[in-house]
Amino acid sequence: MDKLLVGLTFAGAVLALIFALFTARKVIKFPEGTDLMKKISGSIRKGANAYLKRQYKIVLIFFAVMFVILSIMAFADLLTPYVPFAFITGGFFSALSGFIGMKIATLANARTANACRQGLNRGLRVAFSAGSVMGFTVVGLGLLDISVWFFLLKFVFMLSNEAITSAMLTFGMGASSMALFARVGGGIFTKAADVGADLVGKVEAGIPEDDPRNPAVIADNVGDNVGDVAGMGADLYESYVGSIISACALGVAALHTLEAMALPLILSAVGVICSIFGTFLVRTKEGASQKQLLGALSRGTNFAAIVIAIVSLPLVYFVLGEQNWTIYFAILAGLVAGVLIGQSTEYFTSDSYKPTKNLAATSETGTATIIIGGLSVGMLSTLLPIIIVAICVLIAYFVSGGAESAPMGLYGISLAAVGMLSTLGITLATDAYGPVADNAGGIAEMAGLEKEVRERTDALDSLGNTTAATGKGFAIGSAALTALALMASYIDKVNTIPGGAEKIANLSITNPTVLTGLFVGACLPFVFAALTMNSVGRAAQSVVKEVRRQFKEIVGLMNGQVDPDYASCVDLCTKSSLREMILPTVVAVAVPIVVGIILGCTGVVGMLAGATASGFLMAIFMSNSGGAWDNAKKYIESGVHGGKGSENHKAAVVGDTVGDPFKDTSGPAINILIKLLSMVSIVFAAVVVHFSIL
Amino acid sequence: MDKLLVGLTFAGAVLALIFALFTARKVIKFPEGTDLMKKISGSIRKGANAYLKRQYKIVLIFFAVMFVILSIMAFADLLTPYVPFAFITGGFFSALSGFIGMKIATLANARTANACRQGLNRGLRVAFSAGSVMGFTVVGLGLLDISVWFFLLKFVFMLSNEAITSAMLTFGMGASSMALFARVGGGIFTKAADVGADLVGKVEAGIPEDDPRNPAVIADNVGDNVGDVAGMGADLYESYVGSIISACALGVAALHTLEAMALPLILSAVGVICSIFGTFLVRTKEGASQKQLLGALSRGTNFAAIVIAIVSLPLVYFVLGEQNWTIYFAILAGLVAGVLIGQSTEYFTSDSYKPTKNLAATSETGTATIIIGGLSVGMLSTLLPIIIVAICVLIAYFVSGGAESAPMGLYGISLAAVGMLSTLGITLATDAYGPVADNAGGIAEMAGLEKEVRERTDALDSLGNTTAATGKGFAIGSAALTALALMASYIDKVNTIPGGAEKIANLSITNPTVLTGLFVGACLPFVFAALTMNSVGRAAQSVVKEVRRQFKEIVGLMNGQVDPDYASCVDLCTKSSLREMILPTVVAVAVPIVVGIILGCTGVVGMLAGATASGFLMAIFMSNSGGAWDNAKKYIESGVHGGKGSENHKAAVVGDTVGDPFKDTSGPAINILIKLLSMVSIVFAAVVVHFSIL
Repeated sequence: MDKLLVGLTFAGAVLALIFALFTARKVIKFPEGTDLMKKISGSIRKGANAYLKRQYKIVLIFFAVMFVILSIMAFADLLTPYVPFAFITGGFFSALSGFIGMKIATLANARTANACRQGLNRGLRVAFSAGSVMGFTVVGLGLLDISVWFFLLKFVFMLSNEAITSAMLTFGMGASSMALFARVGGGIFTKAADVGADLVGKVEAGIPEDDPRNPAVIADNVGDNVGDVAGMGADLYESYVGSIISACALGVAALHTLEAMALPLILSAVGVICSIFGTFLVRTKEGASQKQLLGALSRGTNFAAIVIAIVSLPLVYFVLGEQNWTIYFAILAGLVAGVLIGQSTEYFTSDSYKPTKNLAATSETGTATIIIGGLSVGMLSTLLPIIIVAICVLIAYFVSGGAESAPMGLYGISLAAVGMLSTLGITLATDAYGPVADNAGGIAEMAGLEKEVRERTDALDSLGNTTAATGKGFAIGSAALTALALMASYIDKVNTIPGGAEKIANLSITNPTVLTGLFVGACLPFVFAALTMNSVGRAAQSVVKEVRRQFKEIVGLMNGQVDPDYASCVDLCTKSSLREMILPTVVAVAVPIVVGIILGCTGVVGMLAGATASGFLMAIFMSNSGGAWDNAKKYIESGVHGGKGSENHKAAVVGDTVGDPFKDTSGPAINILIKLLSMVSIVFAAVVVHFSIL
Repeated sequence: MDKLLVGLTFAGAVLALIFALFTARKVIKFPEGTDLMKKISGSIRKGANAYLKRQYKIVLIFFAVMFVILSIMAFADLLTPYVPFAFITGGFFSALSGFIGMKIATLANARTANACRQGLNRGLRVAFSAGSVMGFTVVGLGLLDISVWFFLLKFVFMLSNEAITSAMLTFGMGASSMALFARVGGGIFTKAADVGADLVGKVEAGIPEDDPRNPAVIADNVGDNVGDVAGMGADLYESYVGSIISACALGVAALHTLEAMALPLILSAVGVICSIFGTFLVRTKEGASQKQLLGALSRGTNFAAIVIAIVSLPLVYFVLGEQNWTIYFAILAGLVAGVLIGQSTEYFTSDSYKPTKNLAATSETGTATIIIGGLSVGMLSTLLPIIIVAICVLIAYFVSGGAESAPMGLYGISLAAVGMLSTLGITLATDAYGPVADNAGGIAEMAGLEKEVRERTDALDSLGNTTAATGKGFAIGSAALTALALMASYIDKVNTIPGGAEKIANLSITNPTVLTGLFVGACLPFVFAALTMNSVGRAAQSVVKEVRRQFKEIVGLMNGQVDPDYASCVDLCTKSSLREMILPTVVAVAVPIVVGIILGCTGVVGMLAGATASGFLMAIFMSNSGGAWDNAKKYIESGVHGGKGSENHKAAVVGDTVGDPFKDTSGPAINILIKLLSMVSIVFAAVVVHFSIL
């Protein structure tokens, strides 16, 4: 069984990676278009590469310091000796996921623009293929990491199942730290460049979006790649791996069998196959309408989800046996919950529905009302997802036999998260193709391609917004479930540490350490959102100044005779975003240790619960407010409420600008934060048990 | 002992009320000024009266329905027969507190303006006296309500201590429901009128603030009275009474003695005396500077706080005896925490400090950046208060002996809240005088008084903003502590219900009902904020339309020949705010019952913890964002960053408009919400125990 298991997971990993490689070669075969397009795409690629190289240098220092700290702890017997190495691998693969995703995205942007010259369908195929490379790289590397480590720990170092899962949780911490760096750094870069380009270029100089005369235009397009692509890749690698290993750990804790640990791995491997088949369904006839395109994408993701839902039933029955097969419904609940949260997101942020339509109407009474309106849309939109997650948690817990055995119930909750993410290969593909299409639009504009090309890339981009909503549903929903699962893993972990059991015995919510931990934890997403928003603000201000300077000092820029100094803007964004990304990440790593030392293990559990609840709410609030503003603006641009250029439109642009850091920096970063807090807590559990004050 | 106790509390109540009456007569003796001033003040008074009358009519229906429901429950033996009556009294006194406060405020506004004609100090004396009437009415009626009920239940119906506190908690629910109606209704009224007056009058028609040609100007001034005064009165009555009775209940649960129940009552009665002495210190020599005025106010509140801090020590020793005297430090912790939260509020919202100064500077890069900046100031400002409250909770719990006996620890937490609010008489006076000064400024403007009068009322008003920050610290801090105390009372209550103990046995934070309850509870403040902000938006839109209509249709309005139709704006605000106030309140009452029926008692506890944590954060975030925007605007108006009328100023005005519903409607309402949820949970505990599903 155990060898079969490693083999199957490894096979899933290899399959995903081969499929990614195969798809990447297909993408590269498409021509890049005119020389100008090649040049622009080259600049973007160069900027993105330069950013990532410098980001990795800084991250390397962080990882080196952490490696030393963890090694010292391992020498002091507070950790097993595998931990520092697992930590490093997690970070490495997370970074690699982002890097490969970014690489293919920057190779595909001009190709997508060029393909759009021939037709919408052709453009879709290039962009979606690029997204698929990213999706399958993430799941492939995730499963590879897990299976190699499992092989080493089981067959080389001959560890027990408990020790294996315990060590494997550590590379989750590596992956989460890397993901937070990537999301925060990339998020700040992309929004600083975006705000800088828009504020000076569009508003002050009055030139259109993506105009080649704008000094920040390359930085803006680089930002899409390093933020939305590389950041998202690292982020979802972390979600994927985190959900699987926490399910493995809770499975071992509940049933003490290899089978319990095997289930999430097998499920994920099977999910890879379903996803690959799903991608083959994403094709449409030439001249397809927007609706048909969306249908093609949905067909792929729905197919994968339905097949995994059906296949899981015999799978669970076969792996866990007759006694525990009802845990299947936990997986099903997770899958359904992911879809429903996505639909709720779409309802609140798409201009096909009332909330965003009404929001666009508030622009009639000015900027203040559209800001208030957008904030309240976001706040109100937290209700449905929280009810969906609550029901999902209850179902997952009770169908898994939680009423008789709490560990079984917690295992069920973690499997719901695995179920939600099992088809990540294809859901991420539909999510990641958006930024590629966005970039293609930029290149079409800068290279002065025909108007219809831009229209086609815009159609792809707006389609991407809809599919991204579903993707976000999976990301946020799985983050909450995984964070809860990790909280349970933390408690298990503390119980295995000598002296830990008594320190974590009283987890009653009326215990003042739990309660104060809860308060502090609930506060963290607020503080984190504030820090990241401030960072975007500061970075954007520096870009604004530089762009203004170039417009003023470079003679002949405005009439197109002289090129602006794109590189200096890219460089500026790189510098400021890297400087700004350090504090939030260090805070996220330090807080669980500090809280643990002061409030003890029970305080940490309270903190994790508080951070998960308020983080889930803040992430949804900020993402959906941002999404609603974005689409309200686009809705007005479609010609209602005065259309483009009207006072109402200006009000909507302010809303969109406020929404930018909401939805692309702070919101997604909070998603990672809540898991990183748990991961750090788990790794440093022994320190807290030994040195806590209360 | 018991008769002495009732006597002392009753004496405290009578003393406070007599002092309020005496002060009110002093206020009325001041002359109202010119005929025009009398007329304007009369219009405001009439509008406020009309609003309150109609509000009470609607509230009456709610109370009648609840009375019937509670009576049926009492007949079904789910409640004691005193509950419906206690519920009604709580509501009645809460409404009365608001009504009297509003009455004196509308009598004092013209008198303050008139007194300012003679000097700043004279103006301060009138306004502060009016605030004192409100402060001492609130505490007087609170203690009266408590002592009369105590007398009836103890000596007429001969109930046990446990039964007494249980019945008394019910009038907390009445008070909270009334307070929520008053805060939400008044908050919507005042902001709808404010936004309507500013948006059309100031921005579109270009006439100054408080210009008599603005049709919404009277409604705006009525709003200050029904929102900031009547709403605040009902709100703080509820806080005051809630903190005392929850401390009584937890005292009985911890020590089973009358003394334990007596302590919060005696403390509050002594607090009345300290507060009265404090008010005598609020006087300054003529021609005093702004700083000296602030010094005079601070002298009063500091004196009261220091004396109560000193006197409490022998008091606690005398009442509780040698064994439990260390609980004194819980009271002290509460007092100190209140002051510190106030200082943190001041730091984040006053233009003397960096956050608001920096916020004003973000106006240089436009509206979007000042909005993002204000949101992040508010979010960041949650950190210090949450740490202060966390430390206060831990100190209060452990100095009271919580490590050995959890009930003692919880009693300590509730006493911290009582300590924080013990000098409410004077802190509320310094808080409530602000709206009076604000109104006086409006009257000075409308009556065309000398420029220096308006300058003086502005000085008083701006002083009021600073003292209001401290007041808010007490209100928010005590709300969190009281909500925690009420959560403990809820658990006690369930344990006394047959079959309840087993239903609430597993309060572990990993219990899925606790956890899902926590998620749902944490979501409520977000939803509540969204509902109330939307209400303000809708009400404001209707006012905007009406004001536009009048400017268009009434000939001779703009050149001052014809008066606008003030009454129709007041009427419109009344109608729309009353319509909008119903849903949020009904939601707040229904949710704990629905959650209880589905998730059971453990789910309710989770919900209360989640709502308290996230409600505390949201209340601080929204209040402080709003405060920072308001003061950033005022700071710019003082001449920096381009000063009044500049583009930067316009951006700051948008920030201020967004902040209005934040700080004056949603934020304060959330404060009441978290306590109302607990109160409803306690009253309906038996229903949940009998009929819950999980």
